[in-house]
Amino acid sequence: MLLAHVTISLDGYMAGPGISNELPMGVNGSRLHEWILDPTPADRQFIADSFATVGAVVLGRRTFDVGLDQWNDTPYPAPSFVVTHRSHEPLHMTSASFTFVPDLAQAVTQARAAAGGKHVILMGADLTQQALDAGLIDEFRLQLAPIMLGSGTRLFTGTAQHTFEPLGAQQTPRVTHLRFRTTATTTPAPPHQHDTPRG
Amino acid sequence: MLLAHVTISLDGYMAGPGISNELPMGVNGSRLHEWILDPTPADRQFIADSFATVGAVVLGRRTFDVGLDQWNDTPYPAPSFVVTHRSHEPLHMTSASFTFVPDLAQAVTQARAAAGGKHVILMGADLTQQALDAGLIDEFRLQLAPIMLGSGTRLFTGTAQHTFEPLGAQQTPRVTHLRFRTTATTTPAPPHQHDTPRG
Repeated sequence: MLLAHVTISLDGYMAGPGISNELPMGVNGSRLHEWILDPTPADRQFIADSFATVGAVVLGRRTFDVGLDQWNDTPYPAPSFVVTHRSHEPLHMTSASFTFVPDLAQAVTQARAAAGGKHVILMGADLTQQALDAGLIDEFRLQLAPIMLGSGTRLFTGTAQHTFEPLGAQQTPRVTHLRFRTTATTTPAPPHQHDTPRG
Repeated sequence: MLLAHVTISLDGYMAGPGISNELPMGVNGSRLHEWILDPTPADRQFIADSFATVGAVVLGRRTFDVGLDQWNDTPYPAPSFVVTHRSHEPLHMTSASFTFVPDLAQAVTQARAAAGGKHVILMGADLTQQALDAGLIDEFRLQLAPIMLGSGTRLFTGTAQHTFEPLGAQQTPRVTHLRFRTTATTTPAPPHQHDTPRG
């Protein structure tokens, strides 16, 4: 099963502005991850479940670039596939290896094979949007942080329509854990439908 | 207590594109309100609670314009204050009256007085954003519809930062009911912080 696994603010940002190697979550963006850095027992259980059920990871090049110094390993203890046009020898870390793959579909195929029946976790805003539009995502695990950032990187920027089946909601003081299964085929919106002024 | 009370899609839209009197929720936007049009028992209870605890309503001019034909009454059975620069005599409906007030702060003051200790409900994307930035909102009741619309009117477009305390989450097949109390003073983001490309 391919899981997208993202923390967003109430106003839809998955990182603050000004992402860099020094600030991988952007300005104020680390506030999104307070539930990971200072977890309640329920948050800790959620993290433990993720680690126990992950079989492989697919991540974007930018997520790899800004995250590697933080992790000092693969992001989860599982084979990790980095989608990038720049070819690169596999990188062997403590828990597992990074493999560099030129496109998303190929990375997902390799990750599914490597996962041995466990979940494949998808990381990164751009890849998540691409995978969503390609109908690849089976389940969304959205962590809704109880903050508004006001600027940064929005997670959902696609123009297609999607329908999900709610699978669960659990609120802790730090975050609201939401699960949704993808159900309906995506319907690209006609090109004349753009954002309209608010009223 | 001033409550903002809005249904949004997972990608942050509170209406589809192309809002008009004929399509008050825009193209496909009525899908956001399936939980109201075809409620489960839990959704029905939520609606009943809203009706039982509302003392007054503050709404935007555009919400009034596109909603009136649908409601054929005030949106809730309570005094309703429309924020508009165009002056207008009060409009007496079956349940209560619409009063037209030139600015948001004045409308909220009048609504609080009229509510007799019950809640004031705020309706409309623009007003909600203004009230949020002015620090007027005590509690958010966000209904998260399990769909992505891909285009339309975004609810949250402000640049300020806000912090909330999670008060509850309940998921039904149609919608996820979320409650948040406003806790932290808003911090306007510095002007150089703009949206950055996704990575």
